[in-house]
This record gives sequence, structure tokens and C-alpha cells, in this order.
Amino acid sequence: MRLSQMLFVTLRDDPADAEIPSHKLLLRAGYIRRIGSGIYAYLPLMWRVLQKVSQIVREEMNATGAQECLLPQLQPAELWRESGRWDTYTQAEGIMFALVDRREQELALGPTHEEVITTIARDLIHSYRQLPLHLYQVQTKFRDEIRPRFGLMRGREFIMKDGYSFHEDEESLKKTYQDMYQAYSNMLRRSGLAFRAVEADSGAIGGSGSTEFMVLAEAGEDEVLYTEDGQYAANVEKAVSLTADAETSPFTSYEKRETPGTETIDKLCAFLKCSPTQIVKNVLYQALYDNATTVLVLVSIRGDQEVNEVKLQNELTKLASQYGAKTILKLTVPDAEAQKKWAAKPLPLGYIAPDVADDYITPLSKGGTEGGSVHPKFLRLVDKTATDLKNFVTGSNESGYHVVGTNWNEQFKLPDNIVDVRKARPGDRAIHNPEQTLKSARGIEVGHIFQLGTEYSQVMGANYTNEQGEEKPLVMGCYGVGVSRLAQAAVEQSYDKDGIIWPVAIAPYHAIVTIPNINDAQQVEIAEKLYTELNQAGIETLLDDRNERAGVKFKDADLIGIPYRIVTGRAIANGKVEVVERATHNSQEIPIAEVVPTIKQWIVQAIEAKN
Amino acid sequence: MRLSQMLFVTLRDDPADAEIPSHKLLLRAGYIRRIGSGIYAYLPLMWRVLQKVSQIVREEMNATGAQECLLPQLQPAELWRESGRWDTYTQAEGIMFALVDRREQELALGPTHEEVITTIARDLIHSYRQLPLHLYQVQTKFRDEIRPRFGLMRGREFIMKDGYSFHEDEESLKKTYQDMYQAYSNMLRRSGLAFRAVEADSGAIGGSGSTEFMVLAEAGEDEVLYTEDGQYAANVEKAVSLTADAETSPFTSYEKRETPGTETIDKLCAFLKCSPTQIVKNVLYQALYDNATTVLVLVSIRGDQEVNEVKLQNELTKLASQYGAKTILKLTVPDAEAQKKWAAKPLPLGYIAPDVADDYITPLSKGGTEGGSVHPKFLRLVDKTATDLKNFVTGSNESGYHVVGTNWNEQFKLPDNIVDVRKARPGDRAIHNPEQTLKSARGIEVGHIFQLGTEYSQVMGANYTNEQGEEKPLVMGCYGVGVSRLAQAAVEQSYDKDGIIWPVAIAPYHAIVTIPNINDAQQVEIAEKLYTELNQAGIETLLDDRNERAGVKFKDADLIGIPYRIVTGRAIANGKVEVVERATHNSQEIPIAEVVPTIKQWIVQAIEAKN
Repeated sequence: MRLSQMLFVTLRDDPADAEIPSHKLLLRAGYIRRIGSGIYAYLPLMWRVLQKVSQIVREEMNATGAQECLLPQLQPAELWRESGRWDTYTQAEGIMFALVDRREQELALGPTHEEVITTIARDLIHSYRQLPLHLYQVQTKFRDEIRPRFGLMRGREFIMKDGYSFHEDEESLKKTYQDMYQAYSNMLRRSGLAFRAVEADSGAIGGSGSTEFMVLAEAGEDEVLYTEDGQYAANVEKAVSLTADAETSPFTSYEKRETPGTETIDKLCAFLKCSPTQIVKNVLYQALYDNATTVLVLVSIRGDQEVNEVKLQNELTKLASQYGAKTILKLTVPDAEAQKKWAAKPLPLGYIAPDVADDYITPLSKGGTEGGSVHPKFLRLVDKTATDLKNFVTGSNESGYHVVGTNWNEQFKLPDNIVDVRKARPGDRAIHNPEQTLKSARGIEVGHIFQLGTEYSQVMGANYTNEQGEEKPLVMGCYGVGVSRLAQAAVEQSYDKDGIIWPVAIAPYHAIVTIPNINDAQQVEIAEKLYTELNQAGIETLLDDRNERAGVKFKDADLIGIPYRIVTGRAIANGKVEVVERATHNSQEIPIAEVVPTIKQWIVQAIEAKN
Repeated sequence: MRLSQMLFVTLRDDPADAEIPSHKLLLRAGYIRRIGSGIYAYLPLMWRVLQKVSQIVREEMNATGAQECLLPQLQPAELWRESGRWDTYTQAEGIMFALVDRREQELALGPTHEEVITTIARDLIHSYRQLPLHLYQVQTKFRDEIRPRFGLMRGREFIMKDGYSFHEDEESLKKTYQDMYQAYSNMLRRSGLAFRAVEADSGAIGGSGSTEFMVLAEAGEDEVLYTEDGQYAANVEKAVSLTADAETSPFTSYEKRETPGTETIDKLCAFLKCSPTQIVKNVLYQALYDNATTVLVLVSIRGDQEVNEVKLQNELTKLASQYGAKTILKLTVPDAEAQKKWAAKPLPLGYIAPDVADDYITPLSKGGTEGGSVHPKFLRLVDKTATDLKNFVTGSNESGYHVVGTNWNEQFKLPDNIVDVRKARPGDRAIHNPEQTLKSARGIEVGHIFQLGTEYSQVMGANYTNEQGEEKPLVMGCYGVGVSRLAQAAVEQSYDKDGIIWPVAIAPYHAIVTIPNINDAQQVEIAEKLYTELNQAGIETLLDDRNERAGVKFKDADLIGIPYRIVTGRAIANGKVEVVERATHNSQEIPIAEVVPTIKQWIVQAIEAKN
């Protein structure tokens, strides 16, 4: 393609509203154009990158026997009501766009397709002889993000590959899950990315095991904890670790102490001259379930630990049925405004005890009604780190006072619900090998594979008949990779001060022939010849034939990040052209006749190195 | 692909809610699955067909120098307000899905992309040196159809290629338009379709010239009028023709006659013993403009002619500005309910005069206000067929009475607005050659190309600077082809009692190897060998390795319409296999070693015949 005939517009300055390097570069280099909040047009160069990524994804999927299809983006609300996710997705998380058609029927714009594929499976899969089966699609998806940002990283419209597999049993699911683990690793490696596969939380998709594929980059929104021996890596939301042993408490008898101005653990330790491991910290949350039940949740945890709210939310989801609910809609730390609804007087924050005294939230906390309005239920949870402490320090439910020398089941009953809701942290010792400590890295989640199990098939009645003639729910897996996010993540991982450095496998073009001076007939002639020959040899090549200064052309070629630049400049006097490798800026003069085979070889080598 | 590993489910009976053969067949053969009203999943076989059609479309587009991109499906409402189409698309025609995001911002689901592309052009195109430019995309589009039907023919979610070109002037536009005419003809021919390019109305897209590409089929929703010499073809909405000369009126003097029970032209002719060509018929419409102005429109037309409402709507759109409006929202024949709002007493339908008497709609008809409500304005139009009549018969505005021997500007003023709003009909003489008469055919519109001109660029301020340094609005064209509709149209044009007969170029697979008895080791061995060799030779081949009766397999192969079936049956005893051509059911025995080259040659011939 000739630049003179392309929509080729680069910007000199960084766009004002772009926050991270890859977003700035894609806008500046004319790959994308913002149309609305979190909504982008993919211009021709970007479209080529997306097609290349999609092609790699398709090859890896097809190699596993998965079959491509295309499911509708408009999804009837009744499917989401059947699975029980309509409220979560349209209200609680609110990330699903919903609309009403001209017949007043509710529809959703698909952020994911478990419901649609499960209804298809229910209709078409009847026998174990049809299993296993794996369908996938490459499609634009929609999410009504609270805060769209970072360009294609967190857009409201984005391209994904999502696949869904169906199985007789867990064993068959695990096999496909392993195949996907390998296929996803292949996709990312072939696309030229440095990444890590990490244990992950399954979130609103549900199911048991799941792995995230994280592209490592400073701008990543996720934190990954890993060990240097390569044996462990997990999203911080999911990560586990060993805790340091608690120190022995200096307090030997139970006593209430005046502890003014000690709302934080640090201040309390300094005041009482004790270790945070000797303290039980009590943190109050407010959970809203999908049946409008509000539950106050008091989590007791060792003073040196933090609550992992993702883990906490998962524990509360498990308890949903005891409140007559299906799922949790929202987990918040109750602010003054929220407290007004149920607290008799302001809570003594920083001094809360492992139980909440009656005078703060009684009688409202008992879940009764008063004056016609329903009041919250109250739930106590204790993290494993806090259960073994002896003679510990904790709150007294009175501002300015703590109690010391406290013991479970003496002053406070140990809660029935013992859970793991602590946040693992860099520096923690690893469970698989206590000599390894957890390190932290930032990552961009580009892929996520899930073992769903029978979560959707059971609730939607998608069954098959096994070899013994018994009807069983289909066992499912689902697997997603963000195609547009992956493309931007590649830029976030590979750029310099001059612009983008595309990995060869996903670059929009392999080479660019630059004519320094289009008024020099010989420069033009050689460039045209090379341009034709390179394209004929299957090397995707641009020709910069614009009437611009050479400096402008070089800057643009660097900015858009084409791997190899061929310049028909001064060297042509010696029958040579200058060839510059974008990544290294290494420049060499190559005889004109050798340009095509040389670049062909470089491309093959670059791609094969990743295969 | 092995059928035993595919999602391969065919239905024995026609699905209840499918109306036309192609819809029934695609459902029965497992190509598509209905998810909601006008919403379908494309299963793996269908996806392959769609990919093949898309590939042909892309090749033809790229060959013209057009560049592929991808524009967002979510479109901010403000873009549609800028172009003035928000109300037409969300209310009047109501075919655009609209939704509100979590920040209460209005968004549309794109049915077309003139607004988005024009805003991109406004931002990125500044100089004549960037022109011409043509961007296209292959994308899922959305339309909230009043009555979704016929499967993929009129769905609410469908795949289109839409392209938009930008030019300095009409001459450049016309060149690209011609290129597109050729590219579209190529696409349809290469896809194996019988089609006709016809003059078309430009509808809500706007602009001047436009051509529709109609796939000829009985089930087509459109009527095409054409001449057998191949010189003329037009959508009936747009078609023109010569009218028969009017007969000389038998009435020589003006007179009011009692004509009871003559509400129709036929009855009136029988009663007065005159020809319909001697009558001026007056038809009342009600037009609602986008500024809420209602205009009553009285169209006078020769008695043997019908009003073409598409042409009438176009004439009324031209007059919008005289009512302070931008566009017409709705054109209706006012029923009793509508008349109540402005008619002083029920209208004498069947007896209306070329002007509406004061006592029926005066004073309300004058566009004044009464009692605070705005009353309709009144507009008279006369079709060209009625302007030359002498001593004609027409209504008297009194039920049961007509007037005869009437003349324009004697009894009734000839309206200022003389228009062409008559419907051309089969049997009419052609304008280009009066010896040719118009014939009628049914067609499925799969493509539509438009010369938009400056309609969008002017209203949205998309200008460029020409060589003389003057700022000018960009001249635009737009070009659409329905990829999913084309695929179904191919089936509508090519099937028999046994199932689909895919054109080779867009068949999901070229060949299917059928093993009559999978318990016969030799049959299996030869089939496996051929399956492998055919695929290796680039012949996309299915293997029917299911444990089913041979009859079931043959029926399924016919139903899904794979062009060539290879059966490893009895003939293998002689070192041969049976090869059946789907379209003709012709069967021949071919030596096993010759199968691959023979089928390869047939495929190449079938595809080349269309290139």
C-alpha cells in the first residue's frame, strides 16, 4: 500500500486524554480514533494488526479441534434471567448494556455468551456420542464500564475470542482445559509477548479452577504474585501464602485499656508496645444480596493482615442461600451515610470489637423490622490468621479503648465461619516452598480460561444422556482472550521514545520502503521496484511515496513501528540501500538484489523463533 | 472435519415458523439456530459460508484500492443529531436500537455508519492530496425491524460490508461508483448468483443516484421492472415508463352528475361509460415532518395510474424546508381516526375534488390554530399524467356526485407543484425504447450503492481544501452489501427437494467422503485415506464417519448441499469409488487414484467459470 493513497495521519503531540504509553502511541500513530467514551474506530493499520492476532488465535484454536461459529450480540433478557445473572450484570455490576426493542422486549448486548451457548447446547446436544464439543467465536463484545480508560485496554466495545466446551465429565473438561492452557500460551508467545499464566479468581463467570494470562507491563491494572522458581504465580485476588508466626503476646490477663488516638494498627502497636501479630483487627462490611437483603459483615483478622475483598465476596456468595438469595450484588465498606440507616449511633471505627455491641446496632442488627422497614442481618467471619491467637489485643466497641489479654470463647465467642480472606503480599513465603518469597509484578489480563463445571447447564437444564442411559448435566469450560486488548498490550510492552516497535508476527506491515526525495527519479525507480518485488515475495510492504521531507518520513516510520525500513537514499550510488531494523535502530547497507531474500529470511527467523 | 466430532444436527421436518425454502433449509440442515426474534446463531457450517462470502467481498473491495477498517457498533446519539437522522431512525422509522448507558448518555446500535465515518473524515481529511479515499468494513449491523422474518433475510442482527468513499468532486465520485458497480457485479457473479443491477430509490440514506443489486428469486421482497433487451431495470419504487395516451373525453361541457356508488375508478367508468384515462383521481395523504408539522397532501393523478408512495415521499422531503422541517417522519393515508383531528365532517372518500372544499377541512386546513392546537397545513400536488387532460371527470367533494367536462384553471386551479409520483407497471412501454414493454420479476436486495454527494459532509462540516486553497465539502459515496443475506439468497436460488445446492465458491466444504458402513474396515481405510489426501490437496472435505445407516448419511449430505460426495461403497471392490455431483445427482465411478485430481479440476472449473 502506498502512503499517498492511505488514510495516513500521524499526530506530533500526545493526545490530552491518553494516560498510558500504548494508548498515546496508537492515537498518535493513527491506528485508532476515539468516537465516544471507551469507543474507538480501528483504522486500516490497526485492523491489519487485529486480523493478524485473530489469525494466530484461530490457528491455535482450530489445532485443538475447536470449531468457529458466530453467536448473536443481541441476547434476549430471558436467557440471562434463566441463568440468574440478569440482575448482577445489569444492576449490581451494571456492566451489561440493556435495551428495550420496539415491542418492549428487553435485550442485552453480550459481554459474554454462556447463556446463549448453553441454550444451543440444550437444544442440540443429547448424547455422550456428541461429546466433547468446543465452539468458539471472534466477536465484538460490549461492557458498560464505570470508567472506560487506557484506550483499547478497558473499552466499552472490544474484540474477544470466546470459546465454550462441553464434556461428559471433569476428566474430559480438564483435558480440554489443559489444551487451552497450551493454546493460549502459544497464542501469546507467537504474538511476541512476555506473559505469565497465573491462578485466578473466577469472578462473576463462576465455576471452579481458572487461569489468567497476564502480559507483563508496568501499566497493568492487575497485580501478580509469583515465585522466582517459576512454581507459583497468581493474581493477587486469588494468591495464597504462608504467614509469619505470631509473636507471643506480652499481655497475660484480660484488661480494658485507655488507648486514645489509636485508630490504626501502627498507632496501637506504638502505644501498647506490641506487635501487629498480637492484635485482632475487626473490619465491618456491608453486603447487598440480589433479593435486597442487606447483611452487615464483621471480619476479624490478624492485625498485620489485610482483607482480600475478592476472597471475601466469594465467601459471602457461598452463604447467599442462607439469606434466601442467589448472589451478592455489592460489597461495600459502610460510610456514615450507610450507617445512618441501621446504626443507633456513630460506630467507634478503629475500636470495634470482634462482636458489635448491642447499643450500636441493636435491635436493628438482629434482622427484625422496626417502623415498617427491614433492617440488616449481622454476620461474623474470622480469618484463619486470627483463630489461634492467645491473649490478643482487640477493640472494645468504645472509642479510645482497647482490650488486651483477650481470648476466643472467653471474652468473645469464636465465629462459626472460619474463612481464608487474607490478602497475600509480596515478601510472604510461598506455600509450595517456604524458602521462596512472593514477588510482585504488574500485568495486563489478556486471557482467562475457566473450568465452569455444571454451573450453567444445571440451572438452564442442558443435559445429555450418558453411555448408561442416565441423564446428566453437561460439564462446561469457557475460554476468553481479548484480541484488541492483546494488540494494545503488545505496544505497552514494546515501544521506545520514537514510537511503537511491533513484534514481527503482528505488525501491520513487515517493511516500509522510504523514498527520501520523491523528486529524485532514481530513488523513485529503485523504491518502486523493491516495493513491487517485496510484495510479490509475500513481504507485506508499505511505500512512503508522499511529498514530504525525509526526516518526516523517518519519524513516521519509527512512530508506526514497522519492523524493517528500506531507504533508497545515498547508498544507491553504490547499488545499495540502507535497511534499518526498527527495534534496534541498527542500520546496514545491503546490495539491492539482496534486499528481498535478506528481509524474507529475517521475517521467517523472527516468526519461527516464537513458534 | 469429521462429522462425528462436529456439532452436526439435522432436522427431519420443516421448522414451524420458517416461511420460505431457504430459511427452512438453513434451519433443517443445522446452519443456523434461532435465539430470538430476528436473531440467529451462525453454527460452524454457516460460519464457513459467511467467511467465504466475506473473502470474495474483501478481494473485490481491495482490488479497487479500498481499505478495510472497523468502526464502532455503539454510536453516540450526538453524531446522529448532528446529521439530523436521530429522530427519523429512532422514531419515524424506528429501525435503530437506542439505549442509555450508566451515565445516562444516549447511544445507538449502528444500522449504518455515515455519521461515524463522516466525523472521522472531518478530523483526518484536510487536503485534496488525501483524496480520493475509500474505507470499508465487514461488520454485524442492527435494525429493530417491525416484522423480522425469513431468517437471515430480514433479521435484526446481520452481517454487512459497508464502504464509504470521499472525493474532490462528482467526477471522482462517479469513477469510484462505477468501480463499485463492477466490484459488486463481480462479487455476486463469483458467489454463483443470478442477479440484476437496478436503478433504485435512495431512501433514508439520502443522496442522488443509486443502484440496487437484486438476486432474482420468487421469495424476494422487492419487485423489479425490466426490459428484455437488457437496457433497463429498476426497482418498482424508482421505475419510470411511458404512459398510454389518454382517450379523448366524451364530455364536452362542465356539469355535475349524480354518480351513486362510484367510489372506485372501475365503478365510475362503468357508470359514466368513460375510460379511466379521462378521470382525474384525487388521493389524500397525511405527512408528518420532523418538527411535528402535519401536512395534508392531495395528489391528483390520472385515473388509470397509481401513486408510488416512495416517489411521493421523496417529493415531500424536497419540500420539507418550506415547512421549517428537515425531513419527513411518516406518510400515511389518513384514516377516520386521523380525520377527526382536522376534518369538520367525514371526508367524501371516492368523491374528493382536486381541491378540498372549505366545509370539510376549513378553517383548520389553513394551518392556523384554533383552541390552542395547531392544525394541519394543506398541500396540492398534481402528477404529470393528469396535467394535460381536457374535459376530464373528477370528484365534486360531495358524496354521490362527480363533475364531468372539467378543465384545469377553469373549475380547478392547476396545482403549482407538478411532480412524477406515478407507479410504473409491468406492461408499460419503456422510455428508452417504446417497443420494449416492462416485465416484472421478484428480487432480494443484497447490495446497494449510492452517490451521496455532499449531503452528510455539509451538515456535519466535513470539508477539505482544494488545490486552489478553497474550502469545500467532501463529496461522498456509500456502498453496502448484505453478507448474511447474500448467503441465504444463494440458497433461495439454488435448492431442490432434497436440500441445499451450494455454489462451489461459497459452499462450506467442497466435498464429503461418506462411509456407508463404518464396520467395514476396507471402506473406512479408503475413506480415511481419501479424506486426508483431499484435504492435503486443498480440497475442503468432510468425513461422514458417524455410526449411522448409509441412507441417513446420503440424505444428510444432500440436505447440507456439499457439491461433491465420494462414497466408499461397493465400487471399492473394483478399485473405484462412487462420486456424486450434488447439483445434478449425476453419479460416476472413479478409480481411487484419480479422485483427488478429478475433483480438484471440477472445483477449479466451477470457480473459474464465474471469475
